[in-house]
Amino acid sequence: MIFFEKLGYQVFSKQTFLCVGLDPVLDKMPQHLPRTQQGVLEFLLNIVKQTKDYVAAYKPNFAYFEALGISGLDVLCELIKEITPEVAVIGDAKRGDVGHSAQMYAKAVFEGLGCDAITVSPYLGQDALKPFFEYTDRGIFILCLTSNQGAHDFQLPNLYLNVAKKAYQWNVSGNIGLVVGATFPEKIKAIRKNTGQMPFLIPGVGTQGGDLERTLLYADSVSKLPYLINASRSIIYASSKEDYAQQARIAAKQLRDKINSLRSSL
Amino acid sequence: MIFFEKLGYQVFSKQTFLCVGLDPVLDKMPQHLPRTQQGVLEFLLNIVKQTKDYVAAYKPNFAYFEALGISGLDVLCELIKEITPEVAVIGDAKRGDVGHSAQMYAKAVFEGLGCDAITVSPYLGQDALKPFFEYTDRGIFILCLTSNQGAHDFQLPNLYLNVAKKAYQWNVSGNIGLVVGATFPEKIKAIRKNTGQMPFLIPGVGTQGGDLERTLLYADSVSKLPYLINASRSIIYASSKEDYAQQARIAAKQLRDKINSLRSSL
Repeated sequence: MIFFEKLGYQVFSKQTFLCVGLDPVLDKMPQHLPRTQQGVLEFLLNIVKQTKDYVAAYKPNFAYFEALGISGLDVLCELIKEITPEVAVIGDAKRGDVGHSAQMYAKAVFEGLGCDAITVSPYLGQDALKPFFEYTDRGIFILCLTSNQGAHDFQLPNLYLNVAKKAYQWNVSGNIGLVVGATFPEKIKAIRKNTGQMPFLIPGVGTQGGDLERTLLYADSVSKLPYLINASRSIIYASSKEDYAQQARIAAKQLRDKINSLRSSL
Repeated sequence: MIFFEKLGYQVFSKQTFLCVGLDPVLDKMPQHLPRTQQGVLEFLLNIVKQTKDYVAAYKPNFAYFEALGISGLDVLCELIKEITPEVAVIGDAKRGDVGHSAQMYAKAVFEGLGCDAITVSPYLGQDALKPFFEYTDRGIFILCLTSNQGAHDFQLPNLYLNVAKKAYQWNVSGNIGLVVGATFPEKIKAIRKNTGQMPFLIPGVGTQGGDLERTLLYADSVSKLPYLINASRSIIYASSKEDYAQQARIAAKQLRDKINSLRSSL
């Protein structure tokens, strides 16, 4: 099954457009859990167990695992192996390198770690992304317009739209999506206009203060799978007490419901 | 000692502008070496031992280690630990993510792995690079104009120069350099014109067919440390027989001498 079908099945069978970012930070973890490889894995697996009814995909950001050293990477391996049989995993790796190196990154993320999808950077152009595209059963989310202030340095005013248009041309296998930040809802409108039914991965609605209602309005399309709304800290650090996983479940359900309710009134 | 001083000492004491890329590929390794963690480490350490007299910095590309799984990352750790007391290591990671995630990548590469420098992608702008810049004793090479065909998709005709100009503004701590491909020597001229004495890391002179002579002409400046010329496959895979390390030494010396000879006739 190709990635966007696996994802679509999750979205429509669970009625959820929610993607949850799994970003382990030792200082923020529940206080009673040990700061060990086992403790981090237990933390994340419990979050997954309690939230998966409301979640279409999980998105571990590799930076947080790499910062924990080799043991962090062991956690990442184990985590992906546990989640992927049930729910899709988007490896948030933001990789981008020339051809042969890109091939090695694709191998590492898709074959080694077994991710269903990946995030990649467009800076090096098509030949640097092709090795990812060739995994036609996986999903490739290309950074288009990110949710941070730095988006003004190069992406705006025009580059993000060039990236969107090129990605649309490159999408011959139907396995490409775009990362577009909820902090620029008007721009999402412009991107959607140029990319048909291409799936979006949308960060920035939580701590970064993106406008959820306008984001949903502009991201929506006639597509059967137009987007995923990502939240990380607001879900997984909903509580630092022993009830952390139950609180994560409540936070996930609330955001899932809020998205669905806003969608139904569009 | 800050990174560009450490590097400058290597360059001028050894009279070499050569950087060697350490990219382990099992299929290309000397046939007699075992395809194990120990075999890969032995291969790379022998290359380093034989070439270091002619090399100013080593540049392991993380993609090749990640493709080997956890054991590849163990090799990377060990390799960096062995090299850095003597020669600078540039972690060719091409990382790029929003603020807090960037902080985690910087921690992983500078603190965890102990790299002297890193390569990063500029797509997400200044706030995504700042966590790297804050390590004022390390070097940060920002991708500016890469050596592949895909450079035409977004970097050319104007973006690469915007990146160069911004990087020049951001360089308040003197720890920023640029990655510029030898396949576009005329553009190197334009970049140099806008970036004063900023160090360049220049890939693309080997297999990719960049023009070394024009590259040197345009990359040169009044600076005491204007650039590093990178070669990977042409050095480390100079032979697949038992003499691989000696052949790598010969290839490194030849390229070092060729660069110096071309420089002296500029």
